[in-house]
Order: sequence, then C-alpha cells, then structure tokens
Amino acid sequence: MALIVQKYGGTSVADLERIRAVRDRVVATRAAGHQVVVVLSAMSGETDRLTAMGKRLSDRPSPREMDLLLSSGERITVALLAIALEAVGCRARALTGRQAGIYTDTAHTKARIERIDTRAVSRLLEEGGVGVVAGFQGIVEEAGDSRVSTLGRGGSDTTAVALAAALGADVCEIYTDVDGIYTTDPRIVPQARKIQRISYDEILELANLGAKVLHVRSVELAKKFNVPVHVRSSFSEEEGSWVVQGDAAMEQVVVSGVAYSQKDARVTVRGIPDRPGIAAQLFEALANANVSVDMIVQSVGAEGHANLSFTVPEGDVATAQETMEGLREEMAIGAIEVDPATAKVSIVGLGMQSHTGVAARMFETLRTEGINILMISTSEIRISCVMARDQMETAVRALHAAFGLEGEPAEEG
Amino acid sequence: MALIVQKYGGTSVADLERIRAVRDRVVATRAAGHQVVVVLSAMSGETDRLTAMGKRLSDRPSPREMDLLLSSGERITVALLAIALEAVGCRARALTGRQAGIYTDTAHTKARIERIDTRAVSRLLEEGGVGVVAGFQGIVEEAGDSRVSTLGRGGSDTTAVALAAALGADVCEIYTDVDGIYTTDPRIVPQARKIQRISYDEILELANLGAKVLHVRSVELAKKFNVPVHVRSSFSEEEGSWVVQGDAAMEQVVVSGVAYSQKDARVTVRGIPDRPGIAAQLFEALANANVSVDMIVQSVGAEGHANLSFTVPEGDVATAQETMEGLREEMAIGAIEVDPATAKVSIVGLGMQSHTGVAARMFETLRTEGINILMISTSEIRISCVMARDQMETAVRALHAAFGLEGEPAEEG
Repeated sequence: MALIVQKYGGTSVADLERIRAVRDRVVATRAAGHQVVVVLSAMSGETDRLTAMGKRLSDRPSPREMDLLLSSGERITVALLAIALEAVGCRARALTGRQAGIYTDTAHTKARIERIDTRAVSRLLEEGGVGVVAGFQGIVEEAGDSRVSTLGRGGSDTTAVALAAALGADVCEIYTDVDGIYTTDPRIVPQARKIQRISYDEILELANLGAKVLHVRSVELAKKFNVPVHVRSSFSEEEGSWVVQGDAAMEQVVVSGVAYSQKDARVTVRGIPDRPGIAAQLFEALANANVSVDMIVQSVGAEGHANLSFTVPEGDVATAQETMEGLREEMAIGAIEVDPATAKVSIVGLGMQSHTGVAARMFETLRTEGINILMISTSEIRISCVMARDQMETAVRALHAAFGLEGEPAEEG
Repeated sequence: MALIVQKYGGTSVADLERIRAVRDRVVATRAAGHQVVVVLSAMSGETDRLTAMGKRLSDRPSPREMDLLLSSGERITVALLAIALEAVGCRARALTGRQAGIYTDTAHTKARIERIDTRAVSRLLEEGGVGVVAGFQGIVEEAGDSRVSTLGRGGSDTTAVALAAALGADVCEIYTDVDGIYTTDPRIVPQARKIQRISYDEILELANLGAKVLHVRSVELAKKFNVPVHVRSSFSEEEGSWVVQGDAAMEQVVVSGVAYSQKDARVTVRGIPDRPGIAAQLFEALANANVSVDMIVQSVGAEGHANLSFTVPEGDVATAQETMEGLREEMAIGAIEVDPATAKVSIVGLGMQSHTGVAARMFETLRTEGINILMISTSEIRISCVMARDQMETAVRALHAAFGLEGEPAEEG
C-alpha cells in the first residue's frame, strides 16, 4: 500500500464528464489498495475569467480581494469531485486550503506555503477516506485575522508537492494533458522521445527555458524534500515521466533534452566607457522600466570601451531601446542596436558535468548547419545559444540528432 | 448618521455593470453620512447552475459538499463589489460568512443562524470602511472541525436581517427587482397600489400565501428583533415599502392586501368512519409519500361518517389520490374525489382583529361574482377561500375593489 498524491489540472476537471473520469481513476487507485489525496485546480479558464472581471472593475484590484475571488474556482471542483466519489460509494471529503491546513505568508496572489497542518487530511486517510484538496489556495493569519490567499500560477502543482512532502507520500502524480516530458518539442522534432526518468535539476533548467510541464516552484519544492514526481496524462493509463533525484545512471546520458525559447529580442549597447558602476546603472534603469532581462554578455570593444548585449522578451524591446537611448548622452555610451527576433536554444543534461567536449559538439553542430551564434551562456548542466529566430527549428532538430536523443517518431495525439 | 444594512439580490449583481450600479448606491449612501454594511447574493442563476452540477454527479449529494459548492457564488460577488468600491476610493472589505462571524447550526443546505460575532464588521465600520458580506452562508463548528454551511433559499435576506439585528442597525434595506410590496399582483389588478407601511404579521401571511417579496424566515427574524425592513428597487431612487411593527394606525386599514396561490388541487375523502385516529393515519400516509398538505377541512357527512377535504400542490395530486386509494379497504373509507385545478385567494390585514363583518363582506363579494367557495380557513389576520382556479382572477379583482385597495394604475415596468 502506497500513499499517493494525485494532482489534476484545469483541463482534467473542465466539465462533469472529465470529473467523472478523474473519479474513476481515483476509485481504481483506491481499489489497487493505495491511500489517495487528490489536489485539484479550477475548471480550465475559470481563473482567467475571474481575474478579468476583477481587472475590469479596478486598475489595481486589492490582492486580498482578488484572492477571495480567485479561490472560489477550486472550491467548486473539489466539492464536485467529492460528490462524484461518494455517489459511487468511495468515501471522500472536499477540503479547502484552510481545512487542509495550508498556511501561507502574507504575499496575496503569490503567497508561499509556510507550513502544512496535516491533521485533517491524515485523519481522513486513517478513516479510509480520500482527501480532495483545493489547490492553489491557503490561508494567512495576521493580527487576529484569517484570510484566504492564493499561490499564483502553477500553485496547484505546488500544493500537491508540498502536501506530498508533508504527508511523506510515496509519489506525487501530476496529471496533465500531455503524457510526459519529452526530449524536445515533438511539434518541431517528430522523433522526440518521452523521457522515463529525469533529475530535478534538469527539469528546473528545462522549465526555466520554456518547457511548461511543471511549474519551477513545485520542482524546487520536490527537490528540497526529495518527493518523486510522476508526470502523466489524465487521458491514458501509460507511464509518464518520473522526476527524481539525479543519480550515476542518469549521468551516463550526456544530454537529456533540447529546450528553446523563441520570443526574445537582443539589444546591444556599444562603446560603453570603462568606468565602474556603468552596467549597474544601465540595468537599474531597465528594472525601473519593468523590463526583465534574461541573458547578458559583455565583450571588450575598441579603445578600452566595452560592448554589452542582453536579451529581453520581444514585447519589451521598444521600452528597452528607449531606456537606453535616454541614458545615451548622460552616460556617454555609443550606438544602440536592436535585433528584434532572436531565439535561444539550450541543451540540458546532468552528464555534462562528467563528459568533456559537450560545448564543442554543440557549437560544431550549429556551425555545420550554418547557424551564427549571437550569444552563449552556460550553467553546470546547461549550454544556451542565442541565434536568429528563423534558424531555431533547424538548430533544435540538429542538436536533438547530434546528442542521440531520437526515438521512434511520436504518435499523433 | 444611521447604520444601514443593504441587501442586494442576484439580479442586482448579475453582471459587472449592475455591480457598478450597486457600488454607486453604496458610495452615495456613504456620502450622505451613513455607515453601510452590504449583504450580497450570488449572481442570478449561479446557485441553480451549481446545484444542477452537483445533482448530475449524484442522486444524493452530500449536504456538506453541496454547501462548499454553493457558497462559492457569494464569494465572487462580494470580492467584486469590494474591488469596485476601492477602485473609486471607498474603503471596503469583502467578508465571507466565516469572516463576518455568522455561526449556524449543523443543518447543512438549510442551516439556521445561531449567533453572530460582529467584531470584524464593527471594527471595519469604526475604521470608516464598508463591510461587504457574503449572504446565504455561515460556518458550523463541530468536533474540532469548521465547515461552511448555507442557509437555504432566501438565505441572503436572512443574513441581512440577522446582521442588522446583531449590529443594532437603523434599517435593513432589501434591494430587489420590484419597487415594493403591492396590495395584490399588478398583473391581475392594474390598480394595485404600492403599500407604504405594512406589519411583520401581515407580510408573513402574504409571503406564506405566495407573494415572493421577502422570505418568511427573514420576516420572522425581523419581527423577533424588531428590525425595520425597507423593500425597494435597485433600479430606482424611489421609496419602497416599509415592513415594521404593527401599530394602531395600521389597524385603521381593514385589509392590507389580497394574495393568491393558484397551483393547488383538492382531494375529498367521503364516508370516513367515526373512529379516533383515522385522520392521523391518513395524513401520516400522505407525509410518508412526501405530499405536503395545505388546507384541511373536516365536515360531518351522512350516518355519523365524516367527509375530509384537503388541498395539495397540483403536482402531488396523483400521489395523494393513490395513497388514499391504497388505504380504502383497510380503513373502510368511502369515495375519493379529486378536483385537480383549484386556487386559494386570501385577504390579509391587521384591521380584521378590530373590525367586524370582514368575512361576511368577503363571502358576499364572491357570491355577487357567482364564485362558489369550496373551502374556507382563517387566522387572526387572514381569511382564505378555495375556489375553482378559473375564477381566481375575478375573485382577486373583486376583493381588491371591495376592500378599497385601489390606487392609480401601476406604471408599466
């Protein structure tokens, strides 16, 4: 008998028919002799609908009231699933964030879980019941007051992993509309292969790079408490991908996946005077203009002057350019150049740490394809290259093949 | 400065535009120097939508889970109104039933309020804020557990009156889609007049008889705690109808209104043996068959046998007839007759207590119209007559005129 936390996202509870499908899976898991705690999101689209209403009423809706508003969606789905389970004789009980003992900090709309009082859920499990917990929400206690809070996007994944950690669950199953984590995007590379096991660190790099299987926060939490996470489809019985602690076997595989992010733009500032604090001033100005900067590369230019390149989301490029132009005279910087359509392609793998020549093979592969590398950045288990956006797909395909990631072409689905 | 509790029903918060209209009214009331507590229902249709979902998943959904499901609607409207108020600089805060301190008994889906801890609302008022309280819901504490409960249909009116009583408010304003309480249904009698003041007792008789302005429970509560209730339209500035303690002035008016209920049917059982306990057995059988009986009249028939007539909702008449037939042999009762289309017309008025001849005038009026009275029942301030349904409208018009209730024809709308 295992203790299993199952998290179902918005598409898995989008209507009554799908809620019945979730019910059947929970009943089957119980029938196999396991204890089950279910964590649910709101029906897909509901959180966006509520958010839009709040924003139409106010430019700056109070985060406290937004949390009350947004927390209603999960109350509906957990009540419905508990009703559906009890209708087929499966003892179950719906629990709000409050009832499940999820205590958060005071950062409304993006709260962090501080502690979980698992008594109510544990008692329910001891009595042979299924706990159906509202994801994405908790409560915050402050000055004798007790309010609902929400965890922000990806919050239900975080609830599930945190509950699994607090309960000492054997596994946290994340049910979604894809059947696992792939070596790269199957829309670009049909031979992309479903990964059976991947480490927390690798998935963190992939998630940060735009692979949206699991929210970064939930993976960090899973890593911290060593919770095995099983990402799988709510529409099939197949095994999905396991996210676990990295081990020696995993390091035999040099590269686990190829990730990309394509809505980037690059800004280059030439002729920056060689004076301390100049870079700090530039990036402070960008932060004040709410431009989020991703990759930064500084290189030596002519006559002791430096050149600085950085990437920003393409929607921010006009603001970034204006901000730089605004500093030009004051800071005596040179030309400002913008490349409005770049992309970033990365290879990720624990094995890089012990295998040499990985970067060389990446650069050689890109060179063979005639792709010009505009910027490079690396971490211990990742190498990223910025390039012209129209070369991105070619790069992903070539790297996927070069590092031996190909399996059978993925089935249509 | 007065303390005003304002309750807005589902049609008054049906969309963002209407919520803005509620916001404007609250702001105007504040600007006039008053303290305001608002009680809201869910958007119209929402509670029905959620109920239907729960019932599609289970024949007998757990009342506890249904309460969690149904309580989400008011959380949405209160959060939205608080956001709208703060957007125009009016300090406001949304409060769930829990936060407003509404404690109920354990009768899920039809809970009764047991006590109200007004501290949170009072503190908010002292700080100059508007309390926006979710109607229809409370919490129930049991065995260390604390769950949401709902008050059943008409629950938001009950929340509003109970809060007004607990806070010692000067008035409880009930905003609805009609502009007050009328002497009778204006669709039947165009000359029906809006009543300026009416007593709790009269409105209770009218509400029980099918006039759906205020829920009976809320009126009983208002009477118990002597809370003045002002029923008015959320779409106009006009005065509505005040529901208050009856006084001498009111008793000058003999009849305050004419009510009717038209979806009734009559069952008559003839030749009932004169033996104790027979009637009890008949009505017990009806109760077991879930038939709700309204009016009952017993009369002496032939040879010491009695005849018994009773009215039931027309949808229950087949069940009632079968139930009686099933008892026929065992209990040696006579013929069973059914009149499937009857109606009940009532006159209500405090003044009846001190004025004589009211019943006589009612019967004479009906006789003049050629209406045959099938059954009669009375209370201290009400006389009801059952008649053939196709004579109901004639009866309502004639009685409305005979008791001098006519005003100017009501305006369209």
